[in-house]
Amino acid sequence: METFSKDLLDAARGFTPADAVFKNALVFNPFICDWERGDLAIKNGLVLGIGTYKGKTEYDLSGSYIIPGLIDAHVHIESSLLVPREYARLVALHGTTTVIADPHEIANVAGVRGIDFMLAEREGAGIDIQYLLPSCVPATPVDKGGATLEARDLEQFIGCDGILGLGEMMNVPGVLAADPAIGEKLQLFSIRDGHAPLLRGNDLNAYILAGIQSDHECTRRDEAEEKLRRGMYIFIREGSTERNIADLISLVTWNNVARFCFATDDCHADILFEKGHIDRCVRRAVECGLEPELALRMATLSAAERFGLSDRGALTPGRRADFCVVDDLHRFSVKKVFVVGKEVIASQSFPPPSLPSPFACRIPSADEIRITGTGEARVIGLVPHQIITDSLRYTIEAQDIPDLNRDILKVVVCNRYRDKECAIGLVHGFLLKRGAIASSISHDAHNIIAVGVSDAEIHLAIDEVVRLRGAMVAVVGETSTILPLDCGGLMSTLPYPEVVKRLKDLHTVTERMGSLNDPFMYLSFLALSVIPSLRITDRGLFDVRELADVPLFIQ
Amino acid sequence: METFSKDLLDAARGFTPADAVFKNALVFNPFICDWERGDLAIKNGLVLGIGTYKGKTEYDLSGSYIIPGLIDAHVHIESSLLVPREYARLVALHGTTTVIADPHEIANVAGVRGIDFMLAEREGAGIDIQYLLPSCVPATPVDKGGATLEARDLEQFIGCDGILGLGEMMNVPGVLAADPAIGEKLQLFSIRDGHAPLLRGNDLNAYILAGIQSDHECTRRDEAEEKLRRGMYIFIREGSTERNIADLISLVTWNNVARFCFATDDCHADILFEKGHIDRCVRRAVECGLEPELALRMATLSAAERFGLSDRGALTPGRRADFCVVDDLHRFSVKKVFVVGKEVIASQSFPPPSLPSPFACRIPSADEIRITGTGEARVIGLVPHQIITDSLRYTIEAQDIPDLNRDILKVVVCNRYRDKECAIGLVHGFLLKRGAIASSISHDAHNIIAVGVSDAEIHLAIDEVVRLRGAMVAVVGETSTILPLDCGGLMSTLPYPEVVKRLKDLHTVTERMGSLNDPFMYLSFLALSVIPSLRITDRGLFDVRELADVPLFIQ
Repeated sequence: METFSKDLLDAARGFTPADAVFKNALVFNPFICDWERGDLAIKNGLVLGIGTYKGKTEYDLSGSYIIPGLIDAHVHIESSLLVPREYARLVALHGTTTVIADPHEIANVAGVRGIDFMLAEREGAGIDIQYLLPSCVPATPVDKGGATLEARDLEQFIGCDGILGLGEMMNVPGVLAADPAIGEKLQLFSIRDGHAPLLRGNDLNAYILAGIQSDHECTRRDEAEEKLRRGMYIFIREGSTERNIADLISLVTWNNVARFCFATDDCHADILFEKGHIDRCVRRAVECGLEPELALRMATLSAAERFGLSDRGALTPGRRADFCVVDDLHRFSVKKVFVVGKEVIASQSFPPPSLPSPFACRIPSADEIRITGTGEARVIGLVPHQIITDSLRYTIEAQDIPDLNRDILKVVVCNRYRDKECAIGLVHGFLLKRGAIASSISHDAHNIIAVGVSDAEIHLAIDEVVRLRGAMVAVVGETSTILPLDCGGLMSTLPYPEVVKRLKDLHTVTERMGSLNDPFMYLSFLALSVIPSLRITDRGLFDVRELADVPLFIQ
Repeated sequence: METFSKDLLDAARGFTPADAVFKNALVFNPFICDWERGDLAIKNGLVLGIGTYKGKTEYDLSGSYIIPGLIDAHVHIESSLLVPREYARLVALHGTTTVIADPHEIANVAGVRGIDFMLAEREGAGIDIQYLLPSCVPATPVDKGGATLEARDLEQFIGCDGILGLGEMMNVPGVLAADPAIGEKLQLFSIRDGHAPLLRGNDLNAYILAGIQSDHECTRRDEAEEKLRRGMYIFIREGSTERNIADLISLVTWNNVARFCFATDDCHADILFEKGHIDRCVRRAVECGLEPELALRMATLSAAERFGLSDRGALTPGRRADFCVVDDLHRFSVKKVFVVGKEVIASQSFPPPSLPSPFACRIPSADEIRITGTGEARVIGLVPHQIITDSLRYTIEAQDIPDLNRDILKVVVCNRYRDKECAIGLVHGFLLKRGAIASSISHDAHNIIAVGVSDAEIHLAIDEVVRLRGAMVAVVGETSTILPLDCGGLMSTLPYPEVVKRLKDLHTVTERMGSLNDPFMYLSFLALSVIPSLRITDRGLFDVRELADVPLFIQ
């Protein structure tokens, strides 16, 4: 009970001055989804109350709005390409004061060591990073990345500062089959996030019955409504390429807003820098017709309540003095941010300790990445702005690949942990007319993945990634553009402005190559074996609904 | 994770039959505050889901409504005059499946032994009784009842089945002054109920800052609105004589309903039997203009959420199959009730183990209860339907008491634990024209309290209470009408129909005596030293706002 002290109580009663008082602003109150006028007084990093107060420091915020600190309900920080402290530096400026992160990218690469690294980064991060432990490493029983986490590996984190619960349970078939290893993980924590794209009806009932409480994978309004009715918290996601606000936001009403949060899931640093974080979600939701007060309720108290964080989410007595100041509700441009009562100011970055990247990858030979055969082939179809893929079929002949007319390109996956043959597939939707891209980020095993129009450029791109022990690379002819990912092959230890710059360089190049927007984000999801429909792993094509490896050509 | 079993998951998926399926009803879904149609399937006492299901037993509930089991957010079971198992038998028939009870009446009489008794009564109670531990025994530092509970006395109950948190913190001045003994109690639990009648402004901020989360003592709409804004859960109370729904219910909206619950606090068995329990609150709220769906949300999910009871409050997969069936939403007459999947049927009562009543009370002499003096006197003013009292002043002469014209009667309090002189005061509002009433229930110390028009009848009434070691007694001339309270002097071990009958007999007699409705409930609150304004304890008159004993005559 840090709040039960004479010092704080006397200040709350107005007998002694507060540390700071913010006057003349309209303060957002998520309990009533409305605004109120009054002095917001803070002391020792906590809210004393709204009322009539005097402070040692007083701020005149006439014409401004004070909003409780924004909360991201589900994010993989690794997807920003930044280490957590850099990520925190960046999103704090957008009004975010708490993120609920699942470190399952780094855990797939480095196991418990990866989680320890992410936990250590909380220190000095400025904002509060709370983690849910990765529940599915590897993502499915058939996957094999850099680590396997069993319940006994997770158990050691129970009660640790910064550990809130169990992260997205992606192994839906395992849950439905009552796999005992999943049961062991579920019973470790009372907070259990879900991941159940397109799951409906009685199977959805069973998944919820198993103890899973939330979902951030809804892409359809009726799907989200069904999950809402069955008692799930719905995290509406707006990531780099996974954008669900437009389709889902009309479901949010005054009456159910407590069950909705915002999540960014996977968002590159450049989007965070240029377009924002949860503030971007708020703006987007309002653009799509949601009342600003409901969007703010989602971004604050709803998320805090979902995770049992009763010390934040609203500016009521005794809660953390986490808040941001904006001067226009529609532009929603964050002017000032306070975390536990201290103003966030742009500060120097400092390099994190390194996390060596495991790399035992073999550069494939020219023969290995050559397609042979002819007939009706399975082709992965990108779905713009979505994480799901289509399972397409085209009649092809090997020598016609790349088929630029029909936009069918070769995709190659090389295991990064073991000396193993690579896998080859076909993909529709990248729109590349020349060159190749490759990356050491490919959810969730994070093998090396490349797509391109020529074997030589694909080869060079993979070579660069392996040489750097992690990178995003775009190759045109013999020229490479590179963002090194020296931290676990997933994150860069560069300061965020430098990462943003290099991402922009990559985008400039890929745009010239004819690519759709943000090709690296789509590339990174091509191997994600838990989201329908068709994927490619280091073993070859994978049908997610059947949970089975399938051949390139239909027999 | 009792829900994570192949057996249950297969049934939820529809692969095997449910234990029971309830078909063709409209089911209330508090997550959307709306109704939905579908089969409600249950197994092993848990909800499997709403969907298309087959069951070993199937109920056709065409034309009916299914509602999650009703929850009382704050009640003192002792005030029903029934022991907990009898209370449970009675309220279950009204659709209540969970009560959050504070056993502070019996704790004031018998300390830890009293709490143990109440906990033991959970077994076989039919419904789920969850307790909050009494935070203020005695109610104020100046009171002295049968026991004192310090933090170290409460500590032993942490983690016990049926213990949820800390009950209503009534010692507002102690909280505001940061009394360390209060801090010790607050830090024992993360759920902490409040009790802060009329507390406003910065002092309210301080009270909330101290860690207190709810209030059930609001009597004014603006008071409740302020507490809502400051983040408190508001329990709207409708007890026997404390009725706040009419004044407060207009504050509840689609948007804030998650912050409101119903509470009965203190309700005699006859009201429960004749008018109902939380079902009565729902009807009353709807009569006062609230949408039925909002009233039902308050009575179900809102209360479950407030107490972190994620296993109930809605009929979603994995939650307890606690629900009731009604066939008309406006009459809201409960037809069937199910608790953990079993239908509640009227059953035989069984006598509880006895809890000896501590009684070391002396019958006062005729001299002791005689008023002497003249001048301007303090008179306690009853406020109809409210627990608060007025602090009135009348010019009186001792020999004029009782002053039936001005309705000023004598009230006597005798300490029941110690051989001590009794205290005398004056009260306005009972309207008695003859006779006297006495009771061993007087919150919270539960001394003997009596009011009447003649010293002889007051004397006889007190004598009967002491002789029976606990009772409610009405005396007219030499005739006594009695409800024995043999369990701690607070509860009767008789079956509820017998208690209801005897209460009615008492009401018939007191009505003939000219009394206002339900005089025993008002009588029981006259000594409650934590609710404004003027009270009488075993020491004499007590000014609640000043927290000071005051003389009868103003000097």
